[in-house]
Amino acid sequence: MDHAGRRLRLRQTAPQGDILILSASYVPRNYPAEIYPFHQDATFRYFTGLKEPDAALLIKDDGTEILFVTEPDPDDVIWTGPVPGADALAAQAGIRNTANYADLGKYLTAHTLWIEPYDFRLKLRLAAWLSITPDQLSARASRELGRAIIELRAHKDPDEIAELNEAITLTKRMISSAQAVLEPGRLESDILAALLAPAIANERDQAFNPIVTVHGETLHNSGYSHRIEPDDMLVIDCGAESPEGYCADITRTLPASGIFSAKKQILYDAVLAAQHAGIEQTKVPGTTQYEVHIAACRALTEALKHLGLMRGNVDDAVSCGAHALFMPHGIGHMLGLDAHDMENYGDDVGYAPGTQRSKQFGLDALRLARKLEPGFVLTVEPGCYFIPELIDRWAATNHLSEFINYDMVNKYRDMRGIRIEDDILILASGSIVLGPGIDK
Amino acid sequence: MDHAGRRLRLRQTAPQGDILILSASYVPRNYPAEIYPFHQDATFRYFTGLKEPDAALLIKDDGTEILFVTEPDPDDVIWTGPVPGADALAAQAGIRNTANYADLGKYLTAHTLWIEPYDFRLKLRLAAWLSITPDQLSARASRELGRAIIELRAHKDPDEIAELNEAITLTKRMISSAQAVLEPGRLESDILAALLAPAIANERDQAFNPIVTVHGETLHNSGYSHRIEPDDMLVIDCGAESPEGYCADITRTLPASGIFSAKKQILYDAVLAAQHAGIEQTKVPGTTQYEVHIAACRALTEALKHLGLMRGNVDDAVSCGAHALFMPHGIGHMLGLDAHDMENYGDDVGYAPGTQRSKQFGLDALRLARKLEPGFVLTVEPGCYFIPELIDRWAATNHLSEFINYDMVNKYRDMRGIRIEDDILILASGSIVLGPGIDK
Repeated sequence: MDHAGRRLRLRQTAPQGDILILSASYVPRNYPAEIYPFHQDATFRYFTGLKEPDAALLIKDDGTEILFVTEPDPDDVIWTGPVPGADALAAQAGIRNTANYADLGKYLTAHTLWIEPYDFRLKLRLAAWLSITPDQLSARASRELGRAIIELRAHKDPDEIAELNEAITLTKRMISSAQAVLEPGRLESDILAALLAPAIANERDQAFNPIVTVHGETLHNSGYSHRIEPDDMLVIDCGAESPEGYCADITRTLPASGIFSAKKQILYDAVLAAQHAGIEQTKVPGTTQYEVHIAACRALTEALKHLGLMRGNVDDAVSCGAHALFMPHGIGHMLGLDAHDMENYGDDVGYAPGTQRSKQFGLDALRLARKLEPGFVLTVEPGCYFIPELIDRWAATNHLSEFINYDMVNKYRDMRGIRIEDDILILASGSIVLGPGIDK
Repeated sequence: MDHAGRRLRLRQTAPQGDILILSASYVPRNYPAEIYPFHQDATFRYFTGLKEPDAALLIKDDGTEILFVTEPDPDDVIWTGPVPGADALAAQAGIRNTANYADLGKYLTAHTLWIEPYDFRLKLRLAAWLSITPDQLSARASRELGRAIIELRAHKDPDEIAELNEAITLTKRMISSAQAVLEPGRLESDILAALLAPAIANERDQAFNPIVTVHGETLHNSGYSHRIEPDDMLVIDCGAESPEGYCADITRTLPASGIFSAKKQILYDAVLAAQHAGIEQTKVPGTTQYEVHIAACRALTEALKHLGLMRGNVDDAVSCGAHALFMPHGIGHMLGLDAHDMENYGDDVGYAPGTQRSKQFGLDALRLARKLEPGFVLTVEPGCYFIPELIDRWAATNHLSEFINYDMVNKYRDMRGIRIEDDILILASGSIVLGPGIDK
């Protein structure tokens, strides 16, 4: 579907009222003129295809579309080169009418529908236009507009699938480039440089800050300063963006020396089995991502039981959340123009309206639980981690010891972490792993 | 001077009242949890050495110092690993008292001194603590506190000089790495990948988004998509940060084929002469950066007169701003923990109190004009550009044609741009170019 088609569908499915969609703005890093690399808002990009900052789309109740663009200063040409004018941008997006972004406030009424911006400059700007305070934005945002957008963006069309495949193809090159320099003695940051090089050379952004760490047990490890030892496993969790901004999200766990020790190989195979079980479950028509999560956790628990790390009835262990000692996160999330797709629409974007996220440890981190529909793209990313602080916390109270053998767990406490992640497209019948296939 | 010494000096030189200095916060990129790489606020780092987000320093009127830190959630260890607590951070910074950042609002009064945050989340947060609206922040910020901080940060101590040298040394490696892969047929982005690799491998941030372009005439060219032709010159304007966050800022203009054409060599030499004249002027005790700017512009004008591009009396041409057709920017800016050091303290941080920036085209972009003092670090970065749109605009009205030979200029209109930039330390007597020396 082209951008105009998407707008038409949104007009048909959104509630009555003018619909406002804001583009992203520049984000200051050190001071107003020193900015972070510009990143377009996913929803604005979805409905216009434009990368323009400080712009907006208004779809009026009668279907009239207006593109608001910031008029360039004539001297801008010195600093940024020639820029396309409002008419050229509107033509590119297939929008008939243009107006000056500075005048946008005059077009807004109490009945305009919008969602709350995640950017703080835009929060301030929108609140000023609406003559409300920034803390009133959340309550006044249109949940119904959000739902209409989510339903559109959740179902990827063939062009979007092609973009996602393209992003994963480049991500495969990134991982190969990293793997080519991986050897004991190097720093994580050496591997990061090799990982990023193909993306930089292709002028592609990262979908998120990559994880490259020998301490995979720290789930969102943001540093790259460890030296890689012969016995280490390196967790690489990364994704390039496609030319149109679609996100890959792939994780591989690689042995530094090229080969896993026997103990680590068994754990790796446990995670692989969990991923296989999760992916198989995505093929069941009408399944929910909650069931995908449970299927993976059950497979992981089975494997850990074989190793003597867990014990007792597998179903009971999983329903108590005992496995969450080893996998405290959810099985995956939606993927699209954002890595955690549409998460600016609320933490519960992955839950059916009316259903609530569990408060059980582990399940409370499951970002997507709803029924899977054809066209959904999501990640399946089980892991197995030995987090010393968490082990000690649970062991101190013998927490769920009917399912966990703490003596054995302590023998594994220096095993750190393993995760394997792929990106899955749900079909009318079954599912497929997107991308060219990446060794695991 | 250590961080405690800096705080003591600030307490001595700032006006009466409690002094509040905020650290940076996380900046959302796509949604609240998907953030840009964290970048610490330079002033908070200068006075504490800490990289902690969502923290604050309060120096009370009586000299009592309090470090406000956000208490970690016990589950954070799963996602981010063990983090130092408030006491460890305070000890690192040499601060005796700690408090919870969430309680900071209770410590603020109408007499607390602060400067306006550039980050929009912090604008909102500070305004809420003070029970004022965000648009009242600018008027209520303490200009005197800003001035006291500027005077401290403007004078670099030996530790800071060492950091700046370190940043320039890595930047030299970046440029060498880029130069090693520079050849016709490659993309600008290929060169960018090679440029960034040594910084990424050393876990060092960029001081600003690098410029790597064959279209140097677009001064802040942010794209990297041009293919490099044999006749092209590549402008590389970049700078690594040092371990403690000090910024290098170096520009080199390299011939794609390894050797300049005769015509380009002459233009290159003109810019080199302008840079030499500017650097020589920085050695004159008591000089202003305004005089450095004029010295460079005069040398450039002399050279362009030799080429027949300019004509008439050189001093008159420069005082009319005729050279600004070829160099529409200022000669340089302060450098330190920010690339445009302390520019969050206002656009006129480089001007003595009471003096105003010129409105003349070209001079209006001079960011630093004040008298240079020992310990100042600044850039000297003249350029020569042929900006077709600007040439056409001036030629249309024969603007300053007594000094500009438009017929000749039009023969050069496809010459694009050249810039050469180094970082200069002002001494009690003379000045030196910082860093290990980078070929030019």
